[in-house]
Amino acid sequence: MAAAEVGDDVLDHDPTMRALEEKAAGLLGTAAALWVPSGTMGNLIALSLHLQRGDRFLAPRGAHVLDFELGTAAWLAGGMPQPLEWNAGPGRPTADLIRTYTVQSARYDALHTTLLCLENTHNGAGGAVIPPHEHALLAAAARDGGLRVHLDGARLWNAAVSLELPPAALTVGVDTVQACLSKGLGAPVGSVVAGSTEFVTEARRMRKMLGGGVRQGGVLAAAGLVALERIDSLAEDHGNARLLAEGLAERGWDVSTPQTNIVLAGVPDVGRTLERLRKAGVLAVPMNGQVRFVTHRDVGKATIEEALRRIGRSDR
Amino acid sequence: MAAAEVGDDVLDHDPTMRALEEKAAGLLGTAAALWVPSGTMGNLIALSLHLQRGDRFLAPRGAHVLDFELGTAAWLAGGMPQPLEWNAGPGRPTADLIRTYTVQSARYDALHTTLLCLENTHNGAGGAVIPPHEHALLAAAARDGGLRVHLDGARLWNAAVSLELPPAALTVGVDTVQACLSKGLGAPVGSVVAGSTEFVTEARRMRKMLGGGVRQGGVLAAAGLVALERIDSLAEDHGNARLLAEGLAERGWDVSTPQTNIVLAGVPDVGRTLERLRKAGVLAVPMNGQVRFVTHRDVGKATIEEALRRIGRSDR
Amino acid sequence: MAAAEVGDDVLDHDPTMRALEEKAAGLLGTAAALWVPSGTMGNLIALSLHLQRGDRFLAPRGAHVLDFELGTAAWLAGGMPQPLEWNAGPGRPTADLIRTYTVQSARYDALHTTLLCLENTHNGAGGAVIPPHEHALLAAAARDGGLRVHLDGARLWNAAVSLELPPAALTVGVDTVQACLSKGLGAPVGSVVAGSTEFVTEARRMRKMLGGGVRQGGVLAAAGLVALERIDSLAEDHGNARLLAEGLAERGWDVSTPQTNIVLAGVPDVGRTLERLRKAGVLAVPMNGQVRFVTHRDVGKATIEEALRRIGRSDR
Amino acid sequence: MAAAEVGDDVLDHDPTMRALEEKAAGLLGTAAALWVPSGTMGNLIALSLHLQRGDRFLAPRGAHVLDFELGTAAWLAGGMPQPLEWNAGPGRPTADLIRTYTVQSARYDALHTTLLCLENTHNGAGGAVIPPHEHALLAAAARDGGLRVHLDGARLWNAAVSLELPPAALTVGVDTVQACLSKGLGAPVGSVVAGSTEFVTEARRMRKMLGGGVRQGGVLAAAGLVALERIDSLAEDHGNARLLAEGLAERGWDVSTPQTNIVLAGVPDVGRTLERLRKAGVLAVPMNGQVRFVTHRDVGKATIEEALRRIGRSDR
Repeated sequence: MAAAEVGDDVLDHDPTMRALEEKAAGLLGTAAALWVPSGTMGNLIALSLHLQRGDRFLAPRGAHVLDFELGTAAWLAGGMPQPLEWNAGPGRPTADLIRTYTVQSARYDALHTTLLCLENTHNGAGGAVIPPHEHALLAAAARDGGLRVHLDGARLWNAAVSLELPPAALTVGVDTVQACLSKGLGAPVGSVVAGSTEFVTEARRMRKMLGGGVRQGGVLAAAGLVALERIDSLAEDHGNARLLAEGLAERGWDVSTPQTNIVLAGVPDVGRTLERLRKAGVLAVPMNGQVRFVTHRDVGKATIEEALRRIGRSDR
Repeated sequence: MAAAEVGDDVLDHDPTMRALEEKAAGLLGTAAALWVPSGTMGNLIALSLHLQRGDRFLAPRGAHVLDFELGTAAWLAGGMPQPLEWNAGPGRPTADLIRTYTVQSARYDALHTTLLCLENTHNGAGGAVIPPHEHALLAAAARDGGLRVHLDGARLWNAAVSLELPPAALTVGVDTVQACLSKGLGAPVGSVVAGSTEFVTEARRMRKMLGGGVRQGGVLAAAGLVALERIDSLAEDHGNARLLAEGLAERGWDVSTPQTNIVLAGVPDVGRTLERLRKAGVLAVPMNGQVRFVTHRDVGKATIEEALRRIGRSDR
Repeated sequence: MAAAEVGDDVLDHDPTMRALEEKAAGLLGTAAALWVPSGTMGNLIALSLHLQRGDRFLAPRGAHVLDFELGTAAWLAGGMPQPLEWNAGPGRPTADLIRTYTVQSARYDALHTTLLCLENTHNGAGGAVIPPHEHALLAAAARDGGLRVHLDGARLWNAAVSLELPPAALTVGVDTVQACLSKGLGAPVGSVVAGSTEFVTEARRMRKMLGGGVRQGGVLAAAGLVALERIDSLAEDHGNARLLAEGLAERGWDVSTPQTNIVLAGVPDVGRTLERLRKAGVLAVPMNGQVRFVTHRDVGKATIEEALRRIGRSDR
Repeated sequence: MAAAEVGDDVLDHDPTMRALEEKAAGLLGTAAALWVPSGTMGNLIALSLHLQRGDRFLAPRGAHVLDFELGTAAWLAGGMPQPLEWNAGPGRPTADLIRTYTVQSARYDALHTTLLCLENTHNGAGGAVIPPHEHALLAAAARDGGLRVHLDGARLWNAAVSLELPPAALTVGVDTVQACLSKGLGAPVGSVVAGSTEFVTEARRMRKMLGGGVRQGGVLAAAGLVALERIDSLAEDHGNARLLAEGLAERGWDVSTPQTNIVLAGVPDVGRTLERLRKAGVLAVPMNGQVRFVTHRDVGKATIEEALRRIGRSDR
């Protein structure tokens, strides 16, 4: 970061930003990409550009754009959300369910359904992965119905590593995708939102509207470039998550095997459990009535084992 | 209408409008009421005033504010909709389901859930009635959780007549209610939105914003005053709807007994059925994958019988 | 009104509405027109359809869309207003002034200027008329710069009568125009917004969004049809306005000769003057720091003379 | 930056962020402050929280919130802008002009004027300073009329240094202030928006909505802390700007003496001049029909002299 070559990215010529955006577009299989300060802004920009006032968009129940972005998909991007049940598995609807919403009425006063928003991995479903063939079917059902497709890929890298596929294998059929450089990849700040060149041109303008344009952004882009070299290392986080889940299960906790780096545990009283964990020095957050643990590069195998020891002691 | 005393209602002094609004408030059990050109505008005004940017609101799946107002609850009123399953009966959630959404997170970046929007009768559920004790429990669950309650009572008069109760018995615990003067009551144009005096003061301003203020509105208010004298006559529409449903059932149609003036019929191919009906001179519309018939004051018992004869012939 | 043939205009087939809209389109020189409950809604629909989020629009200082529509041009239609000085006369900018704003920057983050909104007659300028050659130059300056043109013609009929021209002579070069059926023409409720067939299709949808669709609107359209037969009679209102202005000038008031039916009078203390007038039984309203009198079909020559007598007595 | 202690600022506990925000609040004379990725976002958050749908706000003609933020003050914050003439000097209206807009109408359908937005220094006016006594009179005129006051202090540090006053002397009477850490102070990314504790609590939520919350923001806050130690060094930029202006004047350019670090030069053809400058290796941007030069910490006295030499050669 200290050595990054910088320019003024609001005036559109920070060279390190350009390098990061090109590299990200390559990995995501899109023509272009744009750095944004957060995944929330990346999703917001994409939805704002895809949706006309009042358009209905589809998203799996519990999606980040539905539950964790303060309603901006509605009041700011202008969309009317339609949550989809997880009838194909955790975090995933079936293509048939999508098709029930893509039959467009000919009436002048009918809702237009214009966008499918997927999330892979699905945070609220405990980091569940949508496998590539299912993703392709969902995207195709949407496109066949005239919808666009946005992929909230805040944790797309985790899905790719879990499936041992390149990330671009999971963006087939999408118009736009957002992916985070922070979280598991470890950049301090930033995400990218990617799509066609025309989309990114419009996205840059919308980013400026939202106040997400930054000056000498190269210092952050440099960290993003390092982050993108680390994708494979997420496999360690996944291994550590499985270690944690196994340890919790041994101690009688209600957990299922994690697919990526998120462990969801069902407990009788979330607040009380979080407080007991906190006293034991183990940090977790509440998520949809469960306790959510996340592994990342600053939490190694030894730390997981220590956490399990402390959890064991606190249980007693 | 021709004899109505009028003023300029944009300047706030059309006397017939004032008379209508007072009468409507009395019937609805609220302190005040405001004439609006449509039920859609009445709902929009109420939601706009109840919701802050991005607030989550709850409404039964298929509600008019969700599916038939072109997404304005989201992009214009600023709300983030959460559809509720009909786990208590057609068009009705349970109070327990509401309570799962009223647990507010202490996190600064959590969605605020601030409004329950009920619909009685529920159009999409075939004019299904929410009985008063259930209504009261739903409203109480919302209020106990700190939510406001808006009632889309476009067809509230039908619910009241069906239950043989005064309309005000069905507005217990609500902050605001919208009720239509057109539809079954037969006024050519207009609805009212009602609530506290403070609400109506703000609603008048919002109506002006949306362009719903009218000049010599007394000509329409006069029709509204006539409409409000006719509430009891809706019982005839309900009887005719039952007659229609029985006749359709006899002819092998898949219909359930209507509670009010809407008959929903399940058919294999809605488009084809509607076309066949149209050719036979019987008008109906599609609704959620079914055929929807509505009875009203211009469709008497003899007309129903004639319609059934024509439907019978067209079936063959 | 009582004899009007009606349908359900929300479902798009009220025959009297259709007749009114065709007649209005013919008079305004547009392909199509749409009835709306108010001029405010007509302007709002046009601006909403012309403007993209954040587009700059130009309007003469004091325009109705700037000062009398509660900011909806900004918060709801999404426009960034740029008031224009009246450097060509009351209510009128020069074409040169418009051109200073149509130079578009090539920067990705520059404001787009996309719309000119004219007002003829200009209410805030005392019903001042924009003559046809000036109108044409203003519209051309906008169009040459890539802007669309909307005409707020709430009082376009007055301008046309004053100039002894057909209304369509004043809509040259505009994309859309709004004109009121109430005010001087005397319909109790309603305006039309007119433009291309494509525009009106979209406008109908936006009208539904705003809650401006009405059911058996034919009862109002019938009044609108009568109103459109009365355009020539506005000349009497203009004569009466001149009579009033002359009488006020004789009594030492600071008034200029009215071009149409609005008389603006400068007084030292507007509130006190309005109160004194009210006690004398003469109604007027404040407008931009002046007292505004309006003549209309219910205020004949004799009434003007009586008003002047009362004003004379109250002056003493 | 490399040594910064960090946390997760979206979860509200990055310690370096907290330190920066406390230091900034102290300098600005407010109870609290919040880091934001850009000055544009800081202004947008403040306007969004101060304005209700459709409220009118006042700002000097050419203000950043009017001309350089893509209309977000209108479409996103919901305000109806009223530009104010510079009748007190470059970038400054008089208190009397403000008072003409603070007379609130009692009519229910009147615009509410609720906010004054000042800009010190005023970018579009060439970095012109509002002196403290004038600032205080403007703020008082607004407050006496019931308005809130927001100060766009993107370059407030320059104003303070130019006046040899602490920054807090220029925030008297304001509710909120935005100030940039980038620009002259040299941080790569970031601004602060400051006000009461209640305001900052709400601002944090709005920042999250807009996607401006960042994770390990401490790396940027660390740069911001360094920036805030450098305020006095802006005096050098101001000296260099005067040097540039004098040199340009000697070469016959139409420039006035800069008050801070911005030099505006009137030229016959801005585009051609910028192109000629660019070829000579001197970078400038267009601003309101003039050429705008800015001095900063990477442009020392020697560089100014070299620039003047090159400009001299390119003139020939």
